[in-house]
Amino acid sequence: MNPTTFVLFGATGDLAKRKIYPALYHLYIHGKLPASFSVIGLGRKELNDETFRAHVQQSLHDFYRLEVQEGDTLQAFLGLFGFHVLHIDRGEHFVQLKERVERWEKEQEGAANRLFYLSVAPDFFGTVASQIEQSGLGSVTGWKRLVIEKPFGHDLASARELDSQLSQAFTEDEIYRIDHYLGKPMVQRLEALKQANPVIQALWTSRYIANVQITADETVGVEDRAGYYDKAGAIRDMFQNHMLQLLMMLSIHVSNSNATAEDIRLKKKNVLEALEPLARQDVHTRIVRGQYTAGSIQGKPVPGYTSEPGISPDSTNDTFIAAKLNIDNYYWRGVPFYIRTGKRLKSKNTRIVIEFKEPLRSSASAEDSSVPNLLVFEIGPNEGITLQLNTKDPHHKGEFKPVHIDMFPDRAEAQEAYETLIHDALNGDSTFFVHSDEVDLSWQWVQPILEAFEAGEVPLYPYPAGSHGPEAANELLAQDGFHWWFDEPSEQEAANAAEARKQPVEHVTAS
Amino acid sequence: MNPTTFVLFGATGDLAKRKIYPALYHLYIHGKLPASFSVIGLGRKELNDETFRAHVQQSLHDFYRLEVQEGDTLQAFLGLFGFHVLHIDRGEHFVQLKERVERWEKEQEGAANRLFYLSVAPDFFGTVASQIEQSGLGSVTGWKRLVIEKPFGHDLASARELDSQLSQAFTEDEIYRIDHYLGKPMVQRLEALKQANPVIQALWTSRYIANVQITADETVGVEDRAGYYDKAGAIRDMFQNHMLQLLMMLSIHVSNSNATAEDIRLKKKNVLEALEPLARQDVHTRIVRGQYTAGSIQGKPVPGYTSEPGISPDSTNDTFIAAKLNIDNYYWRGVPFYIRTGKRLKSKNTRIVIEFKEPLRSSASAEDSSVPNLLVFEIGPNEGITLQLNTKDPHHKGEFKPVHIDMFPDRAEAQEAYETLIHDALNGDSTFFVHSDEVDLSWQWVQPILEAFEAGEVPLYPYPAGSHGPEAANELLAQDGFHWWFDEPSEQEAANAAEARKQPVEHVTAS
Repeated sequence: MNPTTFVLFGATGDLAKRKIYPALYHLYIHGKLPASFSVIGLGRKELNDETFRAHVQQSLHDFYRLEVQEGDTLQAFLGLFGFHVLHIDRGEHFVQLKERVERWEKEQEGAANRLFYLSVAPDFFGTVASQIEQSGLGSVTGWKRLVIEKPFGHDLASARELDSQLSQAFTEDEIYRIDHYLGKPMVQRLEALKQANPVIQALWTSRYIANVQITADETVGVEDRAGYYDKAGAIRDMFQNHMLQLLMMLSIHVSNSNATAEDIRLKKKNVLEALEPLARQDVHTRIVRGQYTAGSIQGKPVPGYTSEPGISPDSTNDTFIAAKLNIDNYYWRGVPFYIRTGKRLKSKNTRIVIEFKEPLRSSASAEDSSVPNLLVFEIGPNEGITLQLNTKDPHHKGEFKPVHIDMFPDRAEAQEAYETLIHDALNGDSTFFVHSDEVDLSWQWVQPILEAFEAGEVPLYPYPAGSHGPEAANELLAQDGFHWWFDEPSEQEAANAAEARKQPVEHVTAS
Repeated sequence: MNPTTFVLFGATGDLAKRKIYPALYHLYIHGKLPASFSVIGLGRKELNDETFRAHVQQSLHDFYRLEVQEGDTLQAFLGLFGFHVLHIDRGEHFVQLKERVERWEKEQEGAANRLFYLSVAPDFFGTVASQIEQSGLGSVTGWKRLVIEKPFGHDLASARELDSQLSQAFTEDEIYRIDHYLGKPMVQRLEALKQANPVIQALWTSRYIANVQITADETVGVEDRAGYYDKAGAIRDMFQNHMLQLLMMLSIHVSNSNATAEDIRLKKKNVLEALEPLARQDVHTRIVRGQYTAGSIQGKPVPGYTSEPGISPDSTNDTFIAAKLNIDNYYWRGVPFYIRTGKRLKSKNTRIVIEFKEPLRSSASAEDSSVPNLLVFEIGPNEGITLQLNTKDPHHKGEFKPVHIDMFPDRAEAQEAYETLIHDALNGDSTFFVHSDEVDLSWQWVQPILEAFEAGEVPLYPYPAGSHGPEAANELLAQDGFHWWFDEPSEQEAANAAEARKQPVEHVTAS
């Protein structure tokens, strides 16, 4: 690979420290960075190369997932880093930056590439793009690429505005939008598993599948992001991006294993285009909105959302969303996709459950303890696949035993999302990045929901912290004859049940 | 259940001792025998009730698969047994037997049932049936049933002759033909697994299945059955019955889980009727015939078939059969079924392998290490199911890892075939017994093979003991682009390979 400069905006920020430096280090020690590689950290803080390198080194010690080996290799890695003070609104800073990058590039051989990584608040994306363009930083002898992270707008209009700003300096092909859910190993495996296994591929249709359940439950609350989160809510923070990306990755049908990033993009776009639109007046029938109240998680009492620091006591923001979606295409017509995500839920879990249609039942169904076949993709915190089958023992007729199969015993080998995503961006593989079309179409689908929420047309159900969300989310499935799989009773429910068991059982005798 | 007499012909024989008494004991201690139950053992030996009971008790100690508990229960069980001296050609013995059975029945309440179990050589089946009829033993107030074991004839004509003899005394509904392969837990589960799992059911068609391989390998030789075996060969001893029964149980499609024994019978019959007939002149293209020569099994040298005691040195009998069959119906057209069975093979194994069609391959197929999906039913000596999937790790593109899944960890619970089969016969459940139609149709299919063998039109390939059979059995699949799965190298092949590794490697330098 030709000489490449990794130009990092927000170099002293949280994401850089926790994710980007450890990922770059991992790629470096595994020989996956370009032979001529330079990182220029940018920020308003008055760091120099030396103090910046110390900062990077400290980040590795604090956040790299394996042990950091001291020695020549580490020193060589840190030697790739330099710092440049930059105020985003100061054009001359960009010109100085350009001159610095060019000096380094002149010392290298071959056409030079520049990757601009914007680890800064999205409000600055437009300005940065414009400054890159005006300063000449965007004029390269090799390639240039822009890496940005969500949020990509806070509604349809602002997303389009952002796109228009970026497009002044970068073509769509040059923009790598990160949705870190697309970097999760299990998500990246979804398509490969389907392609490599005719047995799975054969089942991937409404003929066999009854419904799909996509869950992303968090136990954390609003943490230190109150200002952002109270304006975004679960609908913008999780649903519009991560959840719809999971839906796309699950439901695409790629017809050959030679598929390019472009093929997959097109299939993902087709899925969004086939999503049955949700009219504003129907939002309340398909979307459940919730907000956590005080409760208890893993035995610890936690406050309600409106008592969190930085949140207004009368906030009507959603911390939980459940939704029912239909994909109106050949494969998925008639298969409801249920999605839910929220904060302060019982357990941290990201998973996709494929529920297959019911087994044939004997008329003596009371005896029949069989349950639907399930294929479960565990995405986090662990990754794995479970296939639940019924294994009937003919000698005990009617007795069924579901069997769970763990397919990935080697979880320790799983790579970090940022390791693969940064590597892919450097290599120009956009398979697991978000295309402008996807951003636009998903905002289009979500827009009526935002408007219905804004207009107060959708009830905000309270749910106690440590539960599985409001009861209305269960009813969303119950009305179709389904239920969420793998919901264990909440601590409150378990406590109620224990209390009930303490009550004396009344023996009623006929008089 | 009404009072039932279990009338056992051949009560001092090997099968009774090894299988029938232990099975009856197992059913007794689990409360699965009729409340009024009596066993009358028959034989030419001059035993009385007391010496017979001692014989039964000794059999339990020697052959019951769990520990036998001494005490009242055992004594009560033995108290069910009585012995009656009987010569099969003596009509008055049958009349005396009838009187004895009637005496016992009069002491019981309700209509009385009689189950006749013929654990004698098949030459006697006709005579026994006729004597039962003529003595009046066959006139019952409840039901009467006949249980017999293979061989059911040695060709089509003799099978029909046997059927005609039996039908003088018993209707087809009253005849329970045992094929103990149908009593194996995994075979009994096959249909239930398909019915209870839409995920498996969906795959059960030529659309997804490339081929089916049914293997029943034995390590034993001819043992002490030389007289019988040298006339029967693998074709009659295994192929015509056990192997075709496995093929039927695997390939039937039962459309609802309420299916009766009659439904399943009909489906099995349909499969045999759909078997593409094999004309005598084509036998050599579809059937591979083998005979073992001296070799080594698990490190022990064993003699060739023609050196076995009781076998003629110039015997041309088959000890190995491989076959390719086609089922010409909606589900299976185009899916070859490969069957093989033999004696003195490398390892004892009965299994069915479903090979699914190839995964989609990238054009860069050299990199693609994926293998076909396989679903494996292990029938013996252990039982279990394995699903082999490809799990691609996207970070190591092209690296596939097949995953094996063991679905039955509780193998110890598996019941003995005779326990379930005798129980089913007592309860009138004929699901896992062989119908006359199946006997007739399978002999019809096999008859041209017998004739071609007889006429010397099919080569008899030698194969060394401890191998997987003759090479021609591999070629049978190779010509279709397939191979037998799970064949480990034979000891001879392993030894050759080891020897080859000892040879110095020649480094050729260009001159």
